[in-house]
Amino acid sequence: MHEQLAAALGAYRGASPLVQCLTNTVVTNITANVLLASGGTPAMVDNPHEAGEFAAIAGAVLVNLGTPQEHTVAAMRLATASAREHGTPWVLDPVAAGAIGWRTTVAVELLDARPSIVRGNASEILGLTGGSGGKGVEATDAAEHALGAARALAQEYGAVVAVSGPTDYLTDGHRVVALSNGVELMTRVTGVGCSLGALMAGFAAVTPDALVAAAAATTLLCLAAEDAPQVGSGSFAAGLLDALSAITPEQLADRVRLEER
Amino acid sequence: MHEQLAAALGAYRGASPLVQCLTNTVVTNITANVLLASGGTPAMVDNPHEAGEFAAIAGAVLVNLGTPQEHTVAAMRLATASAREHGTPWVLDPVAAGAIGWRTTVAVELLDARPSIVRGNASEILGLTGGSGGKGVEATDAAEHALGAARALAQEYGAVVAVSGPTDYLTDGHRVVALSNGVELMTRVTGVGCSLGALMAGFAAVTPDALVAAAAATTLLCLAAEDAPQVGSGSFAAGLLDALSAITPEQLADRVRLEER
Amino acid sequence: MHEQLAAALGAYRGASPLVQCLTNTVVTNITANVLLASGGTPAMVDNPHEAGEFAAIAGAVLVNLGTPQEHTVAAMRLATASAREHGTPWVLDPVAAGAIGWRTTVAVELLDARPSIVRGNASEILGLTGGSGGKGVEATDAAEHALGAARALAQEYGAVVAVSGPTDYLTDGHRVVALSNGVELMTRVTGVGCSLGALMAGFAAVTPDALVAAAAATTLLCLAAEDAPQVGSGSFAAGLLDALSAITPEQLADRVRLEER
Repeated sequence: MHEQLAAALGAYRGASPLVQCLTNTVVTNITANVLLASGGTPAMVDNPHEAGEFAAIAGAVLVNLGTPQEHTVAAMRLATASAREHGTPWVLDPVAAGAIGWRTTVAVELLDARPSIVRGNASEILGLTGGSGGKGVEATDAAEHALGAARALAQEYGAVVAVSGPTDYLTDGHRVVALSNGVELMTRVTGVGCSLGALMAGFAAVTPDALVAAAAATTLLCLAAEDAPQVGSGSFAAGLLDALSAITPEQLADRVRLEER
Repeated sequence: MHEQLAAALGAYRGASPLVQCLTNTVVTNITANVLLASGGTPAMVDNPHEAGEFAAIAGAVLVNLGTPQEHTVAAMRLATASAREHGTPWVLDPVAAGAIGWRTTVAVELLDARPSIVRGNASEILGLTGGSGGKGVEATDAAEHALGAARALAQEYGAVVAVSGPTDYLTDGHRVVALSNGVELMTRVTGVGCSLGALMAGFAAVTPDALVAAAAATTLLCLAAEDAPQVGSGSFAAGLLDALSAITPEQLADRVRLEER
Repeated sequence: MHEQLAAALGAYRGASPLVQCLTNTVVTNITANVLLASGGTPAMVDNPHEAGEFAAIAGAVLVNLGTPQEHTVAAMRLATASAREHGTPWVLDPVAAGAIGWRTTVAVELLDARPSIVRGNASEILGLTGGSGGKGVEATDAAEHALGAARALAQEYGAVVAVSGPTDYLTDGHRVVALSNGVELMTRVTGVGCSLGALMAGFAAVTPDALVAAAAATTLLCLAAEDAPQVGSGSFAAGLLDALSAITPEQLADRVRLEER
């Protein structure tokens, strides 16, 4: 898979795919900057008048439920329906699913539009499948703990499910990939995980195998994080953007810490 | 009070309280990053479907009126009513109260849900109490000028009122604390004051005495600002986040410039 | 015109004009920080209850269509009508006009409230005038390509039209100014162009000749970009803010690469 990751980054940089982001108000800025720094093209089209129209022409769509409102949820429904109709790959990031009622209902409903990739932490993936995540699963082995739920979710909806943690587990319901790059500061800057969802969408726009797309996006972001200064979250965030544009396809293949199961 | 400030930071870092932020669209990102860098846990739950439910389980709630909209104001009403019902401490930041009509009405109405802390500049505190702030009070001695109004407001609502300025004045209606740390660049980065409101909420979640909570949050942010580079607002903002995670409880006690009256 | 640019920056710094921004959720933070760093005063008043009231007292208004929603578009209509009524200069940034349906209709409708300045890339200016921009015009000579449409638009609405690109072209329908400062990284950080719209509004608040205002704002931002580190987008964005406060009126006159036609 190492060579496929390198090829995915090459394809991403070559195409600079247009990624429509319907995401939360906290992370719009870093999400757009992560896409720009890595070589993609962000477009935050998240109103009901335009979201469906745009999902038909976008390379991929990201839906992130961090700060849902009536009008943005309406836009998400239209965008995902349009994405499904037009074959546009799309990524679901069900932020805080399982922990808060309304958004969990919305997230489960959106699954019917068949996302290419579902990305979340262990609690969120468990929350999506009706399991009660709670604080206990946020421990070190959390991602592994949620792998069973991830595999079942992947099989039911034909999606790749990516569970983030110190080790990230990605599965299409059959194959499982474990990725172990990254640094602890990634969890101390808001929007790093949310930006990963946008990157996954961008890679899915140019990579037919969604498992490869999700793995390449994860590795790119984690390597950039490893190259950023580790002093504090402010300089780390700036350095992360700097590093994103410098990572090469060869580095992706050389430096990835990947285990296939 | 020096030792109480140190203890408050220790408690905050130990508990990493969950701070629900209903804040303005300009500062969501820096607010979340300030909470994360200092050791708290941000959650921007600001829609009417979830705001009340979440305020029941959050450690504290911040309501900031910087960019109110119908739907976020509806969420603020529900969150503050729930916070009052469940004993969740909450902070009101009445941005531009007194200067603009609608939000002033909203801010005054929200006071009925009994915030633990009201945080604003002199104009805003005067605006809340029906005084006409205007441009004149934004002078150097502005915070001191508003101290009478702050004390009256504190007594009427049983809240701590914090008036920001070159010297910050905090009062619970009886005690007054003057804090003189900080640097001028804090006023040249958007969201530093708004983030202080979130920090105050986080400290109020773990500190029974809201005056101590407000003073500890103010001192933490001001010391981090003193440790950041003073070249320009971009590197200052990044350095502020870096410094926030490095300040220790001992530093808080040692470096605070505090006067009790 | 060199001396007029220097005078405009002096006037801007002296007045610190209040710029009401109704802008997109991706760039609110950098827009406010660009205004603060350069010497202006941002105020993001973008709800229908307050937008019209505030446009009457603001120094200038920015309307940016990056992420329109029903409620913010309602606020834009009220703000621009009030701006026209009270003689408040205002800037229209028709993001993605021509490429997406609803916002194009909104942008064309807003023109009736007579903006002082319309700012966009070649595709957007062509899109406003009914031309089909498309990907083709985003090439190097794009801005020059759109100059005819810009001139026509300027004459029809009595506005200055600024077309961004490697060389920026500004016209009031009669005079044309070509500006060639700036660096490539400006296109890899989200919100640099959008912030330029806010800066133009700020300069229009203190400069009767809108062509001079637009040229001074463009030159200020481009010079700051030239002074920022060119390593990657994260450190560039921080350095851009640092540099903005350091550029002097004399530098504006000395370093501008300007051609009048």
